[in-house]
Amino acid sequence: MSGFAARPLLSRLLRGLTHPQVNPARLLSLARPVLSFKDVSSYSLRSHTCGELRAVHAGEDVKLCGWVQFQRKQLFVTLRDSYGVIQLVLPQDKNHADIKQMLAHLPTESVVCVQGVVQLRPIGEANKTMCTGDVEVAVSKVEMVNKSKTLPFQIRDFFQVNEHLRLKHRYLDLRGSQLQHNLRLRSQVIMKMREFLINTHGFVDVETPTLFRRTPGGAREFVVPSREKGKFFCLPQSPQQFKQLLMVGGVDRYFQIAKCYRDEDLRQDRQPEFTQVDVEMSFVDQRGVEQLIEELLQHAWPDGKGTLNLPFPRMPYKDAMEKYGSDKPDTRFGMELHDVSDIMRSSGVTVFERLLKDSPGNSVQAVNVKQAALHMKNKDVEKLQESSKQTQPKVSYQHGFKGLSVLSVLPGGEVKGPMAKHIGAPCRNALLQELQAEEGDMLLLAGGEHLKTCELLGRIRIECANILETFGVQLRDQDVFNFLWITDFPLFLPKEDGSGWESAHHPFTSPHPDDTDLVFSHPYKVRSQHYDLVLNGSEIAGGSIRIHDAELQRYILEEVLKEDAAVLHHLLEALQSGCPPHGGIAIGLDRLMAILCKAASIRDVIAFPKSHAGHDPMSGAPSPLTDAELQPFHVRVQPESS
Amino acid sequence: MSGFAARPLLSRLLRGLTHPQVNPARLLSLARPVLSFKDVSSYSLRSHTCGELRAVHAGEDVKLCGWVQFQRKQLFVTLRDSYGVIQLVLPQDKNHADIKQMLAHLPTESVVCVQGVVQLRPIGEANKTMCTGDVEVAVSKVEMVNKSKTLPFQIRDFFQVNEHLRLKHRYLDLRGSQLQHNLRLRSQVIMKMREFLINTHGFVDVETPTLFRRTPGGAREFVVPSREKGKFFCLPQSPQQFKQLLMVGGVDRYFQIAKCYRDEDLRQDRQPEFTQVDVEMSFVDQRGVEQLIEELLQHAWPDGKGTLNLPFPRMPYKDAMEKYGSDKPDTRFGMELHDVSDIMRSSGVTVFERLLKDSPGNSVQAVNVKQAALHMKNKDVEKLQESSKQTQPKVSYQHGFKGLSVLSVLPGGEVKGPMAKHIGAPCRNALLQELQAEEGDMLLLAGGEHLKTCELLGRIRIECANILETFGVQLRDQDVFNFLWITDFPLFLPKEDGSGWESAHHPFTSPHPDDTDLVFSHPYKVRSQHYDLVLNGSEIAGGSIRIHDAELQRYILEEVLKEDAAVLHHLLEALQSGCPPHGGIAIGLDRLMAILCKAASIRDVIAFPKSHAGHDPMSGAPSPLTDAELQPFHVRVQPESS
Repeated sequence: MSGFAARPLLSRLLRGLTHPQVNPARLLSLARPVLSFKDVSSYSLRSHTCGELRAVHAGEDVKLCGWVQFQRKQLFVTLRDSYGVIQLVLPQDKNHADIKQMLAHLPTESVVCVQGVVQLRPIGEANKTMCTGDVEVAVSKVEMVNKSKTLPFQIRDFFQVNEHLRLKHRYLDLRGSQLQHNLRLRSQVIMKMREFLINTHGFVDVETPTLFRRTPGGAREFVVPSREKGKFFCLPQSPQQFKQLLMVGGVDRYFQIAKCYRDEDLRQDRQPEFTQVDVEMSFVDQRGVEQLIEELLQHAWPDGKGTLNLPFPRMPYKDAMEKYGSDKPDTRFGMELHDVSDIMRSSGVTVFERLLKDSPGNSVQAVNVKQAALHMKNKDVEKLQESSKQTQPKVSYQHGFKGLSVLSVLPGGEVKGPMAKHIGAPCRNALLQELQAEEGDMLLLAGGEHLKTCELLGRIRIECANILETFGVQLRDQDVFNFLWITDFPLFLPKEDGSGWESAHHPFTSPHPDDTDLVFSHPYKVRSQHYDLVLNGSEIAGGSIRIHDAELQRYILEEVLKEDAAVLHHLLEALQSGCPPHGGIAIGLDRLMAILCKAASIRDVIAFPKSHAGHDPMSGAPSPLTDAELQPFHVRVQPESS
Repeated sequence: MSGFAARPLLSRLLRGLTHPQVNPARLLSLARPVLSFKDVSSYSLRSHTCGELRAVHAGEDVKLCGWVQFQRKQLFVTLRDSYGVIQLVLPQDKNHADIKQMLAHLPTESVVCVQGVVQLRPIGEANKTMCTGDVEVAVSKVEMVNKSKTLPFQIRDFFQVNEHLRLKHRYLDLRGSQLQHNLRLRSQVIMKMREFLINTHGFVDVETPTLFRRTPGGAREFVVPSREKGKFFCLPQSPQQFKQLLMVGGVDRYFQIAKCYRDEDLRQDRQPEFTQVDVEMSFVDQRGVEQLIEELLQHAWPDGKGTLNLPFPRMPYKDAMEKYGSDKPDTRFGMELHDVSDIMRSSGVTVFERLLKDSPGNSVQAVNVKQAALHMKNKDVEKLQESSKQTQPKVSYQHGFKGLSVLSVLPGGEVKGPMAKHIGAPCRNALLQELQAEEGDMLLLAGGEHLKTCELLGRIRIECANILETFGVQLRDQDVFNFLWITDFPLFLPKEDGSGWESAHHPFTSPHPDDTDLVFSHPYKVRSQHYDLVLNGSEIAGGSIRIHDAELQRYILEEVLKEDAAVLHHLLEALQSGCPPHGGIAIGLDRLMAILCKAASIRDVIAFPKSHAGHDPMSGAPSPLTDAELQPFHVRVQPESS
């Protein structure tokens, strides 16, 4: 096989034969062709890839390496590599019986290297569904490189295989075209981001440590015992502190494709290690960061996915909550929330009247699920009801009112549903008008604490879309990419147990410049300079302008959040040492790629993901260690009794 | 400050003013200027960087952000940002007394944003030592952004500061020009590597997991307790298994700038987390990988560091050991080893005569340290003697012969030294001739087991170079970059305790194709397809062609290495599933950058390194955790008694 020498790039280039997607005519027009496309056979034992052969190669002697995909009548073998498939023609003369014998009987997925001449297929036998369907290769030499055993599943059928088996044999799953596409696209998108950030805008790619000190409130951090007894590193959830310290250190345009760690519930399609595009800049304001990210995404956006129109729309957090019941609204479809408090205040529906009277902080919200009455069955509505009960107790549920009020709109503006008989005509008509309801629509109402009620209906809105799509009503086009900035988040939120305040995002987020004074008087009123970027209902990026004033940072940590500022001593000292104003953002790369690849899970855009349960079914990680193996770290597994 | 709007790139471009290193004339000649240099002020509050202003900017109103570096006579302030320094002229009129007052009295390292007009300096006042020395900025507005406290050390003098203090305040150390240069160069070199691998040669950047299963023999792996009682992840020392599995999975050209972990002795300038450029290819042979790496380094080589001549020279392991006493020889200087066994066999020097008679596996080696007798003092020679005694017992030391034999060459070919009176004239003359010795040279001899003796003298050779350089004899030019491939390593080495064999590198290394049969009969004779790349005496890359045959892999694991193959079950199964032939390499990026940056330690090319002791003096990592914090992981610190 060592005779399969790599051909020099330039000569292949001049002949315009190298890359299947390069049109030779276009090639000649390129000023600097060497860098403009990829030579995927350089340094290797093949002369060409299986996917690149065309009529123009007819007559050439080629060397190909790949997997036996398919054998037909001892005449043909389909050879596959990562770039496509080609039909091999087996020699039928006696002198080459060994070649025929080997290739016709090797188990599929065996690896071979072949040599042969490219020839046009006989007239009428071209396969128009194959990129290489005009040609075939008449094999003159073959080397069996590795015989495959029978595999646990066929590479071609892998989508029907259960995920555990796919993860256990991930190396086979990776051969499938979907994962090949996803991983290659991921690499390309990241590269385009790097070109934009480094080559065009002078950002510096800096690696930050992953063995770090535990951060305050880092409840989901993995711990790593050191060889010093009783001392531990932690795997950080993000490079947040380091990127701020880089700003203090004058690395004023930083980015990193950063591995981050979070020891958390994996059911929501998360991974214990994940990747973010981490960016930070000095001397920047909120709009500067947003604009950078918009243009970064526009630059890195893959071909065939449309073009991105800039700037992306923006929406304050409060509006998003009131219109969509979510801080990451999917704006590809309507079904917005309507505040119907005024209508329901004297509606005859006691539970709504009472809760509106109870507190000015309560409201009644409604959603019109267009044409849902035509599709949804009783069991769908029951599912929505069930789901609405799983919400927080501050919604109407606590008032003895169980879940959603459902009204179906009948011909002539009549309504049907448990609440229908209580509701007066003026109220009913006002409701129909506010919601622009027509026959066949389904109106869903809920009441209670304002934001919680919005959240409940926001969740129900998504569930309705899920249900309707199972009936073939397409609400969310996977080819549409709706970006949206969410801004003006609250800086602090009340703690779940009501004992005080916690940061809505993290304690380094700067207050809105107009609200700085309120930090000291009315912290719950303070808006932050945090911004999220939402794509089709998923939060794909989040960032903020950071606090660069040491005193403000100390006040927030100690006086508002009641945290021990001592463990952040190094950061506070850094802020006092000539810290520039700065801000940044992190893009969740796995999620972004999953949306771009139309993947059901981020596991489909990661080469070796962990399972739902956080395991690696392939290697068996995590695995038990013996006391002896733990000895150097001075830890042991807790005894059963404790 | 929000009035400091970013200026559009294009208009700045057309004016050719953006980047300090871009000559406007050259700019106009560029076909696609937008991607050809960096716009480091885009999206930011500044209009220009401090370092880019030139006479051509005279008359322009500019906005600058930076650190107060130096104040002079209430007339001038030097403002610094990450791109250079500029002289600010303070207004002297009463209307702007506040500006003068503020800028003249701010503590140095405070952060300010200023606005003003660029003006040519008065004739005769230009500062030719400053890039911006032809101009100054007359300040019309200033905003004090962040007042600095007095810093623990001056940014300008940081080289004299002890390393602990520098690491404790790493964010200040980073402001210094040396670390700024090193981190920015590192980012650029990596980017050029990516362009070569991805854009030119179609490699795919794939992230592999860092939470993995413990590997056999992974004694230096960090462990990470999971939330499943008694089960642990490990942080892998390299993506070795994953990259091989990617080859099985058809990702036939993989690379990754990979974070790796090794819990090891840091005294030898290592770090618990380090970075390697990790590459793997299918359908490749050894020379293919070597050629790829040669051209990769040539492409990524920084400007101003000379050009690399390809191919790099190659040397078999055995020759390197016999010529330089090292498998990573520094070929920038001579002082090679000479085998003087034949000369010493009947020399009259009993100890040498005896050990040569004892065993055919013993030899006597000599080095001529040119002109050392003119420089080295007794204490230097004693130091060498001391050091030679710390070597393995198989060297002559065990024969009662304490350390090195030293002979100084006197005028007329006489020699001086403890051995001189025993040595006969024919032997002495033969020795002088073999070593081309002249007056003033110092000859060092040692004997014992052949390779151990070579190793000892190899180490002494480097120590001699270290000593001579303290006397100003320059042997190793830091501007010379001597690359060398070391090949034909042994595949197996005897274990230290003599109990069997271990892999010289790792168990996945393929035997040399000529030696495959010897694996089953004489494993100690087998050469491997491992290759190291050495630069100026440091191993900066290592790789191999891997085993792709499951049966050979199983035989080596079970029969030669006597390891439990069960924990590598997934890999063995993958090899049976149509694994292509493959090979790869990993470049130690930290070490490569340290050599390129002429840094004394890899800590100087890492943004936030750990100290010698493995600590982060800034954050205090690693740090104690409470039992409650360890509870979720079901581990506790071992009690004192155990």
